[in-house]
Amino acid sequence: MTNPVRAFAPASVSNIACGFDILGFALQAENGQTGPGDVVTASYGEFPGGPESGGPVRIARITGDGGRLPLEPGRNTAAVAARALIEGEAPGATVDLQIEKRMPLESGLGSSAASAVAAVVAVDALLDLAVPEQALLGYALAGEVLASGGAHADNLAPSLLGGLVLVRSLDPEPDVIELPVPAGLACALVRPHAEVNTRESRARLERQLPLDRAVTQWGNAAALVSALYRSDLELLSRALVDVVAEPVRAQGVPGFHAAKAAAIEAGALGCSLSGSGPALFALCDGRDRGTEVAAAMADTIEAAAGVACDRLVSPLPAPGARVIAGEA
Amino acid sequence: MTNPVRAFAPASVSNIACGFDILGFALQAENGQTGPGDVVTASYGEFPGGPESGGPVRIARITGDGGRLPLEPGRNTAAVAARALIEGEAPGATVDLQIEKRMPLESGLGSSAASAVAAVVAVDALLDLAVPEQALLGYALAGEVLASGGAHADNLAPSLLGGLVLVRSLDPEPDVIELPVPAGLACALVRPHAEVNTRESRARLERQLPLDRAVTQWGNAAALVSALYRSDLELLSRALVDVVAEPVRAQGVPGFHAAKAAAIEAGALGCSLSGSGPALFALCDGRDRGTEVAAAMADTIEAAAGVACDRLVSPLPAPGARVIAGEA
Repeated sequence: MTNPVRAFAPASVSNIACGFDILGFALQAENGQTGPGDVVTASYGEFPGGPESGGPVRIARITGDGGRLPLEPGRNTAAVAARALIEGEAPGATVDLQIEKRMPLESGLGSSAASAVAAVVAVDALLDLAVPEQALLGYALAGEVLASGGAHADNLAPSLLGGLVLVRSLDPEPDVIELPVPAGLACALVRPHAEVNTRESRARLERQLPLDRAVTQWGNAAALVSALYRSDLELLSRALVDVVAEPVRAQGVPGFHAAKAAAIEAGALGCSLSGSGPALFALCDGRDRGTEVAAAMADTIEAAAGVACDRLVSPLPAPGARVIAGEA
Repeated sequence: MTNPVRAFAPASVSNIACGFDILGFALQAENGQTGPGDVVTASYGEFPGGPESGGPVRIARITGDGGRLPLEPGRNTAAVAARALIEGEAPGATVDLQIEKRMPLESGLGSSAASAVAAVVAVDALLDLAVPEQALLGYALAGEVLASGGAHADNLAPSLLGGLVLVRSLDPEPDVIELPVPAGLACALVRPHAEVNTRESRARLERQLPLDRAVTQWGNAAALVSALYRSDLELLSRALVDVVAEPVRAQGVPGFHAAKAAAIEAGALGCSLSGSGPALFALCDGRDRGTEVAAAMADTIEAAAGVACDRLVSPLPAPGARVIAGEA
């Protein structure tokens, strides 16, 4: 057995405009190398592990978070996910986790999901459990619920599986469908240097939706899936419309509407917030177009709102979480 | 030019459980022959056609409706649709229409849509207009709005185009995607001898939907589309869930829940109301299974509610509207 085990889980874009809580895709770097995400290192714990000691998981160290993430296992996404896995599959085991944040927090890129996924993948490998992906997703979900206050897997599932995925339902267990991605599709991503708290952002959404708006949303979600199977980029473009979350959340992202207009002007197929935002994504036909669109969005936000932006162009589909080599 | 022209438009199943207002499929008879639907015969009108004469369309005769449909053009679905077509594409023309109802009214099988579609197809051919299907659908929509009180094309589109279709949006114009149908898929249909008024049925639906229920619905709608492209009948079965309209509408259909349980017990992939009901449909793997399921549903409703039922097993996909031979 290897001890310790390191696992990487990528950042991801959830919702994809029309698929609130059901659609998401994984991200990678422009050259196809590892992009933003989390690395979690799991090693055998040398502590009793009972309730009195705080459970079977300890957080030994967190780097890259600016000291903001809690070391206390009951409040840490990675630890809660790892604990769920251990209690379900390997009761009695104890592990130490080290977390390296290689992505920004609270940017709408699935930071908590990446922590939870990297943790369960690392612990699964450390303890040689070979838990099926669907069950692993269920354990990771425990961490995501802690972070966001709602059970949704549209960041978790792409971070674990890679690619572009549909989460049909979580009840009674995760039902995840891996969708095809048209050749050459790329994601232009821009992250303004601002933060959005996912829990607060979810709380701001309307709890009731007018029926006609809901119909618009499921028409677009169904059409987006059809466009992916048909590699129909015109249909994809028409379907990339969010009438549910974006109208509410865009209010908290300075320059969003101007940046979206700039993305479309620069040839994007569609543009919306990534998850809760403030990151924006635009789907594009080809990496070169993606580079132009990312520049247009970033320049617009920097000019309109005076907020600096990071840029990323991710070829799709991107790989999911995996065990990686190297010392902890 | 041929005068008169007869056109047939098939009955259809709308919603398909999770696709309220966006999904529907056309029906045919078990042997692949023409099944339930409307025949509209259009002939050159010999009347002035101006506003004072009541517009460019007259209803010469209606058969098969038990005298219940209005002859007055402004209140007749077929006439309103034909009038929209003439005013848009052939101003000054006048036509007489004869309508043969070959399907029950107010049963959830798209009776008004079949009238509107058969009318525009007949008039389009009579006047040699060759209007594209998408535009024809827009004209037929005028008739459907009259009948149901809402703009939706999930009966119109399959009745016109055949097959199983997705109506992504009607704004600014109908955006219809023809979806693939897994080989061997059949629809078991049962029509209790009772009626549901579509306009009243729509009015009973909640105008506001809890967000979590809306998410469930669009997860299933997206998954249903995926299942059709993948020919994945297990996923199709899991996705055939309606948490929006069925819970409300089923209350008006005696024996519905028992019949649905009987359909699943008999091996159906899923079962729900056809449109507003009271007709029920079940999707099945193969015609033989469809025959068993239709019998199970009909027997259950007859026993549980004392209501006689018609049965139909329709192989899918079924053809859409077409000009047919024969004298008016």
